[in-house]
Amino acid sequence: MPSSSPRSPDVLVLGGGIIGLSAAWRAARRGLTATVVDPDPGRGATHAAAGMLAPVSEVTYTEEPLLRLGLASLALWPAFAAELSADSGHNLDYRTDGTLDVAFGADDMAALDDLSVFLDKLGLPFDRLTGRECRRMEPMLAPSVRGGLLARGDAWVDPRRAAAALLAALDRHGVPVLRRRAAEVLPGEGVRLSGGDVLTASRTVIACGAWSGSLPGLPPGVAPPVRPVKGQIMRLRDPSRLLTHTVRGTVHGSSVYLVPRGDGEVVLGATQEEMGFDTRVTAGGLWELLRDARELVPGVTELEVADTVAGLRPGTPDNLPLIGPTAVPGLHMATGHHRGGVLLAPLTADLLFGDGDKGLALACSPRRFKEDA
Amino acid sequence: MPSSSPRSPDVLVLGGGIIGLSAAWRAARRGLTATVVDPDPGRGATHAAAGMLAPVSEVTYTEEPLLRLGLASLALWPAFAAELSADSGHNLDYRTDGTLDVAFGADDMAALDDLSVFLDKLGLPFDRLTGRECRRMEPMLAPSVRGGLLARGDAWVDPRRAAAALLAALDRHGVPVLRRRAAEVLPGEGVRLSGGDVLTASRTVIACGAWSGSLPGLPPGVAPPVRPVKGQIMRLRDPSRLLTHTVRGTVHGSSVYLVPRGDGEVVLGATQEEMGFDTRVTAGGLWELLRDARELVPGVTELEVADTVAGLRPGTPDNLPLIGPTAVPGLHMATGHHRGGVLLAPLTADLLFGDGDKGLALACSPRRFKEDA
Repeated sequence: MPSSSPRSPDVLVLGGGIIGLSAAWRAARRGLTATVVDPDPGRGATHAAAGMLAPVSEVTYTEEPLLRLGLASLALWPAFAAELSADSGHNLDYRTDGTLDVAFGADDMAALDDLSVFLDKLGLPFDRLTGRECRRMEPMLAPSVRGGLLARGDAWVDPRRAAAALLAALDRHGVPVLRRRAAEVLPGEGVRLSGGDVLTASRTVIACGAWSGSLPGLPPGVAPPVRPVKGQIMRLRDPSRLLTHTVRGTVHGSSVYLVPRGDGEVVLGATQEEMGFDTRVTAGGLWELLRDARELVPGVTELEVADTVAGLRPGTPDNLPLIGPTAVPGLHMATGHHRGGVLLAPLTADLLFGDGDKGLALACSPRRFKEDA
Repeated sequence: MPSSSPRSPDVLVLGGGIIGLSAAWRAARRGLTATVVDPDPGRGATHAAAGMLAPVSEVTYTEEPLLRLGLASLALWPAFAAELSADSGHNLDYRTDGTLDVAFGADDMAALDDLSVFLDKLGLPFDRLTGRECRRMEPMLAPSVRGGLLARGDAWVDPRRAAAALLAALDRHGVPVLRRRAAEVLPGEGVRLSGGDVLTASRTVIACGAWSGSLPGLPPGVAPPVRPVKGQIMRLRDPSRLLTHTVRGTVHGSSVYLVPRGDGEVVLGATQEEMGFDTRVTAGGLWELLRDARELVPGVTELEVADTVAGLRPGTPDNLPLIGPTAVPGLHMATGHHRGGVLLAPLTADLLFGDGDKGLALACSPRRFKEDA
């Protein structure tokens, strides 16, 4: 490894969302020197994420590679959470109570049947529940819930706490997090920051989420094909703890979920909007969330609104992330995680630092899109 | 008049909402010394008000005394706004473009017919409009709007700007606004502030809105019978100026309005909830506002959410305010304005300082409720 001066670390990570922070933390734990560059670390899509670690219900059955990634990363989460808690001294609000998928109509019930068969095939643990059993588990569910499926292996985490823990852990490891903007990527060398300073590193990791494709300086064939997919969420105060599980369902054709936090909040999510780089919280976004959440859990109307946020997920043409080396030596990608950034953070760190499964690494190769790869 | 030292002004006003501030301003313009006491002037119900100056569409036809109050105060608003602008140097965003009431179904159309007859009888100016004419006036109205009525005499104002202007005008007149809490009313003498200081005055005006009835020290027969009526509103950013008139309609049985501001915002209001002293913005409140506003103007869904606020209006048993002297010499009320505080502020100041109509003064007498009057 070359120089380990602050100006020239082994690993330079552009982007301080959960992906970039996890990558830098892994690098530091591997004994590498690292530097993170982000004007506002922990914000962006991480700040607007619900933190569901639910690989099966999050994908359609045709997306097998994404499912394999999710399952692989879910398996890494217990150790990741334990190590991060120990390393940071922070509580991540990591919970393993499972996701309760509920059904209202015959179509929903049929979809849960299909999901059961699929989970069986994968050997994943679940329980089929009647409407009454669902309400026994979550008494605030709508009376119209006809049945459900508890995915017992699913977990969730508070992404804001996870980001704060990663920042604390990086601080303990002496990894600088520069509150600066990357003005230009210098392919194979490093980055020029806003203001003009140049940082060099033997390896640069682009982890700028939806903005990864528009960083100045990236050669056209190397710039990742990510697009922003807007998501709006709402956090509600729930001092009486209406829910104990993550609950999800399909209402008016769109998926809605409610994720309870240990600190007495519930996250409602999330819209999916193709609106370009638009992070406005809109009347229509909140209306959609509230309309659908009410159908699932009517009592949410009584809860106080704590916060509303919009974030931009980095979507890709094939819904798979871009993780690993590009055609430019020393330039690596860790972006395109779309709705799965929190779930896929441990696996992404593994893949970046050579511990990941070769097949998965190939599926995520940033070079899969371009003729110049 | 007795002493005019800051400790003993002629008039002591408890409460710095639009009512209390207007009263103190009128007192100052009459050459009286005044002091206002409020820990957070300009907040409370004033901060959550839309500022519609629309006396007719705001009341049912049976509430004749309230209608007369509203019409009398609406007639005072042009001079009030002009004098306040001149005295403060502030722009109040006072607008006189009229309120457009719209109808969706046959019931609504019949209600507009009744309203027409009523306005005719009162000699108030209005236009009946077809659905097409409504949309020509406000192109963003829902296609399902079947007809409308433009109340040409209606106006509106930005209550936050009005409060800021009143504070600036009071400052020019040398009226202190003490950011303190009234710990105890000393009937006939003045008030003891939190911390222990005592202020005396020959006249004390209670203008604490929904809190007026629970001020410590008020004798039981004198404490006004006000109750908090919660209202939630939402402010949206509207840079493209969707609306030019205040638009209102009845959706799902509840009245909803959209009030455009000169600074490119639209206010959606308002819920009416009997929830005690609860100022939480709730998921259900926002959902109701968004659901109803969408029916009137579908394009609101595209607008950014700027702010959500809940306020407590001071409701009374007969829906009329309490303005004027109580049974305790020197102790006056200016509260109980419910949804009409902004509209009724000029008239309230007149009634407090002897310029108001005697019949109206009698209708608003705080002594009308109690046997001890």
